[in-house]
Amino acid sequence: MFADRLYDAIKQKNNPSVVGLDPKIEYIPQDVLHCAQTGDSPEPEAAADAILAFNKALIDAVGDLVPAVKPQLAYYERYGWQGMRAFAETVRYAKSKGLLVIADGKRNDIGPTAEAYAAGMFGADGFNADALTVNGYLGTDGIKPFASYCADKGKGIFVLVKTSNPSSGELQDLELADGRSVSEAMAAWVSRWGEDYTGKSGFSSVGAVVGATYPRQAARLRKLMPHAILLIPGYGAQGGGAEDAAAGFAFDGTGAIVNASRSIMCAWKNDKYKNYGECRWQEAARAETIRMRDELNAALEKRTAG
Amino acid sequence: MFADRLYDAIKQKNNPSVVGLDPKIEYIPQDVLHCAQTGDSPEPEAAADAILAFNKALIDAVGDLVPAVKPQLAYYERYGWQGMRAFAETVRYAKSKGLLVIADGKRNDIGPTAEAYAAGMFGADGFNADALTVNGYLGTDGIKPFASYCADKGKGIFVLVKTSNPSSGELQDLELADGRSVSEAMAAWVSRWGEDYTGKSGFSSVGAVVGATYPRQAARLRKLMPHAILLIPGYGAQGGGAEDAAAGFAFDGTGAIVNASRSIMCAWKNDKYKNYGECRWQEAARAETIRMRDELNAALEKRTAG
Repeated sequence: MFADRLYDAIKQKNNPSVVGLDPKIEYIPQDVLHCAQTGDSPEPEAAADAILAFNKALIDAVGDLVPAVKPQLAYYERYGWQGMRAFAETVRYAKSKGLLVIADGKRNDIGPTAEAYAAGMFGADGFNADALTVNGYLGTDGIKPFASYCADKGKGIFVLVKTSNPSSGELQDLELADGRSVSEAMAAWVSRWGEDYTGKSGFSSVGAVVGATYPRQAARLRKLMPHAILLIPGYGAQGGGAEDAAAGFAFDGTGAIVNASRSIMCAWKNDKYKNYGECRWQEAARAETIRMRDELNAALEKRTAG
Repeated sequence: MFADRLYDAIKQKNNPSVVGLDPKIEYIPQDVLHCAQTGDSPEPEAAADAILAFNKALIDAVGDLVPAVKPQLAYYERYGWQGMRAFAETVRYAKSKGLLVIADGKRNDIGPTAEAYAAGMFGADGFNADALTVNGYLGTDGIKPFASYCADKGKGIFVLVKTSNPSSGELQDLELADGRSVSEAMAAWVSRWGEDYTGKSGFSSVGAVVGATYPRQAARLRKLMPHAILLIPGYGAQGGGAEDAAAGFAFDGTGAIVNASRSIMCAWKNDKYKNYGECRWQEAARAETIRMRDELNAALEKRTAG
C-alpha cells in the first residue's frame, strides 16, 4: 500500500515534507548549467540535461532528509519530449535513492483514456512513479482507472480538492444547494473513492490536495476525509506558514505531507543563506530542508499539545 | 486568431469534424506493426514507432477531408518519453499537411506552473500544438497563462465544461445555491475568459468541451457561451449520434467541431467496412470520415431548416 509506505517513510525520516522538483532554468546555479554545457536560454536537449543534472544534485543534497520528492510535470513538458526524458530519469534516480516519487501531473480524462494515463505514469513501460496527482472534475469513471493501481500495484493518487492558488475559490468555493461547497462535495467523493484502499496505517492510498493557503477550509476538509493523506502545497513561497500547513494534519501529527519547491530549489538565492554563495547551493538547499522540517514538526507538536 | 483559423478550415473542408489520434496498439493493423518491427506487446520505443507510423498513414488517408486532428496525450504518455517523442513528431507531421492540431491534454495547474504547461504545449521548444484542452477547476489564474497565448501567439484552448463520460454529472451536474449547475458556472467563466480573444468569425479562441452524450445540457451550455467554439466528444463509439452532436452548434451550423477517434481509427475492424479487409484499413478510415462528415452536415442542415 502506497499510504503505508509514505506513512512509514515520514516516521522514519521524522519529516512530513516533500521536496518539489519544479526546475526552471533560472533556478539552476551557473556551475550546473555550465557542466551541462548550456546557457540561460538553452535548446530543449541542453535544458533537459541541465534539469536532470540539477535534480540529481538536489536529490544528493537532501534525499536523506525527506520521504519523497514531487516532480511537477509542467516543467518537464516545457522542453518537449527531451524534458520528459529528464523526468523519466529523475524518477529513476530518486527511486534508486530510496525516495517515493509523487508525479504532480493533475491528469484527468474519461475511463479508457484515464487507463492509458495510469499505465503511462505508473507502468514500467512509462514513468513508473509511485503516486500521481489527479483532477476529479470528471467523476468516478475518471478516477477508478487510477485508483485501481492502489490495490495490487501499490500506487497512490492525490485528488485535487482545494488548491492553493488565489482564484481557487471561483469554482471550488461555490455553494451548493445542499449547503456544502464544491470542494466539500469533492472531498466526499475522495473519501468514497478511497474506501477500498486503506492500509495498516489507517490511511488510504487515495489522498487529496488541499492548499496551506486556506487553513480554515483545510481543517474542515480534513474532517470530511479522515482516511485521506493530504498533500499540502502553498507552504513557503506561496505564503502558507507552518501553522497553516499543520491545519491539514490529523491531531496526532500524521496524515499529511507538505510540499516546498522554490524555497528549497532556490534557497541559494535567499538572503538567509547568502553566506553559502552560489557554489555551495546544495548546502543552502539542505539547510532550508532542515529548517522546514523543524518548523513543521514544532508546529505539529504545538497543535497536538494545544 | 485560432478561432478564425478553425472556423475557416471547417468552412473550406465543409466538415465540422476532427479526427482523434488516440492510438492504442490494438487499433494498429498488423502490416503497420510489422513495418515498425513491433508486436502486440512491444517495448516503449517500438510502440512509439508503431504509433507514429500509424498516425502518419492515418493523416495521409484522411487529412484532406478534415480541418484538424486531436491527439490524446494519454496514449503517448502511455509509452513514456518515447511516446511523447511520437506525439511531437505527430504534431509536426499533421501541421506539415496543413492540419490544425488540438492537443487533448486537459492540463491544469496554478499560475506559474500553468505558464510552463502553456510554454511546453504551445512553444517551439516544446510541442508547438495549435490548441489545448484544459481543466478549469483551479479558476482564472490557472487559465490565464494558457489564454494569453490566444492573443498574439494565435493559439486556442478548450475548457472542460460538461464531459461525455457516464459519471460526469457527479460533480458537473451538482446544483448550486443560485440554481445553476456546476457546469453552468464553469460555462459562465469560459464566456468571461474568452471575452478578449474573439476573432472576425465572432468566435473566441477560448472554447469549451461539451459532450455529445448530453444534448439537452449542450443546448443550454451553447446559449451560455455564445462565442465559444465547442469541442464535442462522445460521438460514435461513446454513443452520441449526429443529432445529439448538432445540439452544440449555433443555429447557422457553425461554432462547434465534433471529435471521433475509435470509429475512424478502427473503421477497419467495423463490419460495415469489412469488404476493405485489414490491408485496406486506410480506405476504411476514409470511408468512415466521409460518412461522418455527411451525417453531421445532414443533421446540421435539418436543424437549421427546422
